[in-house]
Amino acid sequence: MSEKPSDMGLNPWRATVLTLFSDAFPGVLGASIIGGAEKSGIWALETVDIRDFSVNRHRTVDSPPAGGGSGMVLKPDIAAKAIDSVVNSNSVSGSDRPLIYLTPRGKPLTQKRVRELASGPGLIAFCGRFEGLDERVIEGRQMEEISIGDFVLAGGEVAAQVMIEACVRLLPGVLGDAQSASEESFEDGLLEYPLYTKPREFEGRAIPEVLLSGDHKKIAAWRRQKSEEITKARRPDMWTAYKNGDDHERD
Amino acid sequence: MSEKPSDMGLNPWRATVLTLFSDAFPGVLGASIIGGAEKSGIWALETVDIRDFSVNRHRTVDSPPAGGGSGMVLKPDIAAKAIDSVVNSNSVSGSDRPLIYLTPRGKPLTQKRVRELASGPGLIAFCGRFEGLDERVIEGRQMEEISIGDFVLAGGEVAAQVMIEACVRLLPGVLGDAQSASEESFEDGLLEYPLYTKPREFEGRAIPEVLLSGDHKKIAAWRRQKSEEITKARRPDMWTAYKNGDDHERD
Repeated sequence: MSEKPSDMGLNPWRATVLTLFSDAFPGVLGASIIGGAEKSGIWALETVDIRDFSVNRHRTVDSPPAGGGSGMVLKPDIAAKAIDSVVNSNSVSGSDRPLIYLTPRGKPLTQKRVRELASGPGLIAFCGRFEGLDERVIEGRQMEEISIGDFVLAGGEVAAQVMIEACVRLLPGVLGDAQSASEESFEDGLLEYPLYTKPREFEGRAIPEVLLSGDHKKIAAWRRQKSEEITKARRPDMWTAYKNGDDHERD
Repeated sequence: MSEKPSDMGLNPWRATVLTLFSDAFPGVLGASIIGGAEKSGIWALETVDIRDFSVNRHRTVDSPPAGGGSGMVLKPDIAAKAIDSVVNSNSVSGSDRPLIYLTPRGKPLTQKRVRELASGPGLIAFCGRFEGLDERVIEGRQMEEISIGDFVLAGGEVAAQVMIEACVRLLPGVLGDAQSASEESFEDGLLEYPLYTKPREFEGRAIPEVLLSGDHKKIAAWRRQKSEEITKARRPDMWTAYKNGDDHERD
């Protein structure tokens, strides 16, 4: 890349994470091209420890659910104070960034939402722990509830890292041009075709003839056919959406 | 918990991760109850650097895709050597663990698969990078392709962390009994009902009366109704599966 946002005097894309486990960050976000992009000023990561907003000397942040049941619930007053400390801070332009609560109850994250988030100023991620967060903060702060999948995690931290990594790789200057372009193959609503590279034969398995033919039209047709076959077999939901021409992506 | 597997002389649940970015680990897996559970010997994490199996002095592991196109493909011979070093190692009981390739082309990860993985001896996770992995290794080593969602990451590392965290929290002794039980509410095929805790009023919003009534039957009915409403509104796919009685979980 020829210019870095930091050189151009632009604000970096900014991720602020509210968590009870600040030591889980940067984690994977400190490695590879994502970590490198933070070092070069394309994006910035900060964490806010929710426990800092507890008002008692035991630094508790949770209490039992009203109506009974197992687990503990994050208290609304403490969560709100932690959120407001970010949103009301002028220095980090908090209020123009979406406030996202990572929870299995949320709307499934899609590449479409990732693109929207990446094209904005950044995001604020609230990581759930325990049984969950008091509903009144979610409503009162108009939090956007997002899920990364139909499974249960120990907390929202790794889900926040997934969402942030997906966004950061789309920021200008993070991926080379060749890689950027390749993403489109996933975004056309089909799963990717099989890939092959050297050597020509591996353990008795040869690279399919057509890929070595040099006939670009034939190669494109073969790849399209394989993409369709794989999508049909593995993801009937995606295949149905594709056949119906649903915006070429699950929403 | 009264006894730790390590005290009982049992093998820990074992996760081996094949990656080009070992420094992305343990990341989030080193924090909170998941990190604590590794320290107490309930599970064990090891990483294998795929680059160690390159045979040239530049330590390259990739080459351009056969048939042309953008990006680079992980070479099958190098990937196979890295995999075989784990699977053929007696010391880590490699061969009885599923070999999983994290890729957006995979089958979506579900809580059902998480439960199966957690009840076995562990897993071997292969983290994709670049454009992807040569199809012949996937076939030749019978890799199970798993996706954590319909979005694109910079690599499989954070997806592996998601999968491992979801498994580890289910291992005996990791969560307290109260937390373990609570998971069932997600697994019955509905999203969770709203949660409330102290204080009774927060910014003019009161805890719903029924939750303070002490009438457990009414509370259970209210929660069920809310779960159904939320699922219907947010996840028509899940709601349809629930109404059809599909095994109470997406498969």
